[in-house]
Amino acid sequence: MPQKEEIIAYFKSLQNQICNALEVEDGLAKFREDNWEHHSGGGGRSRVIVDGYVIEKGGVNFSAVEGELTPAMQKQLKIDDNCSFTATGVSIVIHPKNPLVPIIHMNVRYFELSNGTYWFGGGIDLTPHYVDNSQAKWFHEQLKKACDNSGDEMYETYKSWADEYFFIPHRNETRGVGGIFFDHLNHETKKKHKLDSKRQIFDFVKAVGNSFAPIYTHLMNLNKEKQFSQGQKTWQLIRRGRYAEFNLVWDRGTKFGLVTNGRTESILMSLPPQANWEYDHKPKKGSDEEKTLSLLRKDIDWINS
Amino acid sequence: MPQKEEIIAYFKSLQNQICNALEVEDGLAKFREDNWEHHSGGGGRSRVIVDGYVIEKGGVNFSAVEGELTPAMQKQLKIDDNCSFTATGVSIVIHPKNPLVPIIHMNVRYFELSNGTYWFGGGIDLTPHYVDNSQAKWFHEQLKKACDNSGDEMYETYKSWADEYFFIPHRNETRGVGGIFFDHLNHETKKKHKLDSKRQIFDFVKAVGNSFAPIYTHLMNLNKEKQFSQGQKTWQLIRRGRYAEFNLVWDRGTKFGLVTNGRTESILMSLPPQANWEYDHKPKKGSDEEKTLSLLRKDIDWINS
Repeated sequence: MPQKEEIIAYFKSLQNQICNALEVEDGLAKFREDNWEHHSGGGGRSRVIVDGYVIEKGGVNFSAVEGELTPAMQKQLKIDDNCSFTATGVSIVIHPKNPLVPIIHMNVRYFELSNGTYWFGGGIDLTPHYVDNSQAKWFHEQLKKACDNSGDEMYETYKSWADEYFFIPHRNETRGVGGIFFDHLNHETKKKHKLDSKRQIFDFVKAVGNSFAPIYTHLMNLNKEKQFSQGQKTWQLIRRGRYAEFNLVWDRGTKFGLVTNGRTESILMSLPPQANWEYDHKPKKGSDEEKTLSLLRKDIDWINS
Repeated sequence: MPQKEEIIAYFKSLQNQICNALEVEDGLAKFREDNWEHHSGGGGRSRVIVDGYVIEKGGVNFSAVEGELTPAMQKQLKIDDNCSFTATGVSIVIHPKNPLVPIIHMNVRYFELSNGTYWFGGGIDLTPHYVDNSQAKWFHEQLKKACDNSGDEMYETYKSWADEYFFIPHRNETRGVGGIFFDHLNHETKKKHKLDSKRQIFDFVKAVGNSFAPIYTHLMNLNKEKQFSQGQKTWQLIRRGRYAEFNLVWDRGTKFGLVTNGRTESILMSLPPQANWEYDHKPKKGSDEEKTLSLLRKDIDWINS
């Protein structure tokens, strides 16, 4: 059974692997690293990249924090026990310069309590400023491959969960073309994943984590040299506003971090370098922007449509 | 005793009065008006101004919505009764172009239930991108005057309440130099305000509402022609990011609107036209930006310091 040391070591190596791949594909900028300690124990290694050839601002953060559960954490996690915890994971958000390169997010995480409870969670989702059906299809195919190695129907289950999670109720829009999302996976929640052991769940989480670099470097490569207009840049800034709205109003991970006194600069690395809000912006009829809005909805079968 | 019709009529006239004063002081842009209906009854008159001489983006919104309490509203308001409600008010946020002109916010509101409960709430607060002590002092003196006509210690009580309310916990910063904030004022909460009647409370709310136009047009006029640098503009965009963080993460009014299915574009008119996030931005030692940060804290006695 994998112990937390093994899981932490994997997450650190995943951060390295992803940062290396992104630096190579970007070709210009390098990550800046900040090591920090958490007041209750443990800490993190935040890596931020800015002003690259492809990436305007991105973060690839590793953390492994431990301590006693605080009242704020108990409330957020709905746990009554007084016990100590370890929380570790890798979180990524990349905002590209070119509006034809999509925004991407990944998180993989592991949580363990001293009373023996543990769970894994995570997800990947893609937020194109302009939805390209063939790229959305390809993206979902890669996630399906990563899931199918671990078990049947995992992709379908976690794809639906992502549609629910990455949704902006006050806009009645999904954040982007979705992806996969899963939480509270352990040997007691087998109905969610049909995996028999903690080892198998960890292998699944690793498959998801390892899929990130090949997926996103491919999408960077495919789109980074495309020409774009000032109008497309303006639209990107408006879409980034929606991204900020999701993260600040609805994202449970962000909320958890902010109310439990996490490291604000690491949590909010997900925010875009620049976002614009234009009152009551509506795209022109028949435009690419309008087409994108029409595709920001749940339950699209990207692979078979 | 003032009935809701009288209160609604005042709020509409207040919106007119403020829009006229802002247009005159701006000198260039005019408000655009959108009339909208709420699905449960009533509606609103949203007015937005953009690309002015002084104002980059601002909203002065009136609404008077009615209907049956929904489960989401009951949860937010902590009310168990099934009854109908009327909610009316004026909400304002102004984002100026020039970083030396402060951002301002005001809200005055009235809520009434068919079971006979009612309350008034509201507040004004100022968010300078650069804190000018003499202007902060003047601003608080105006608020104190508006309060003192209604009763002793009201300014002091509501000034402290604003320090608590307009606070960004994850930044450990106040949003700006504060102002006044009050909520749930009615004849049963006399210990909060020492006013004897609904009429007196309404008169106080009117005094607050009427103070807005002279206060903000003065601050516009005082600062609008000041020269500013690109560095000051950059700082403004970062401070606007903090403003967006407060509104989207912590502001209970925004949250209430978004989860109770309010009109999103009217609620989020408070967001800046553009906001930037720079990872781990720290102002230079001894700079005006650092001085401003040092003044973003609770319990500063602006009038006597």
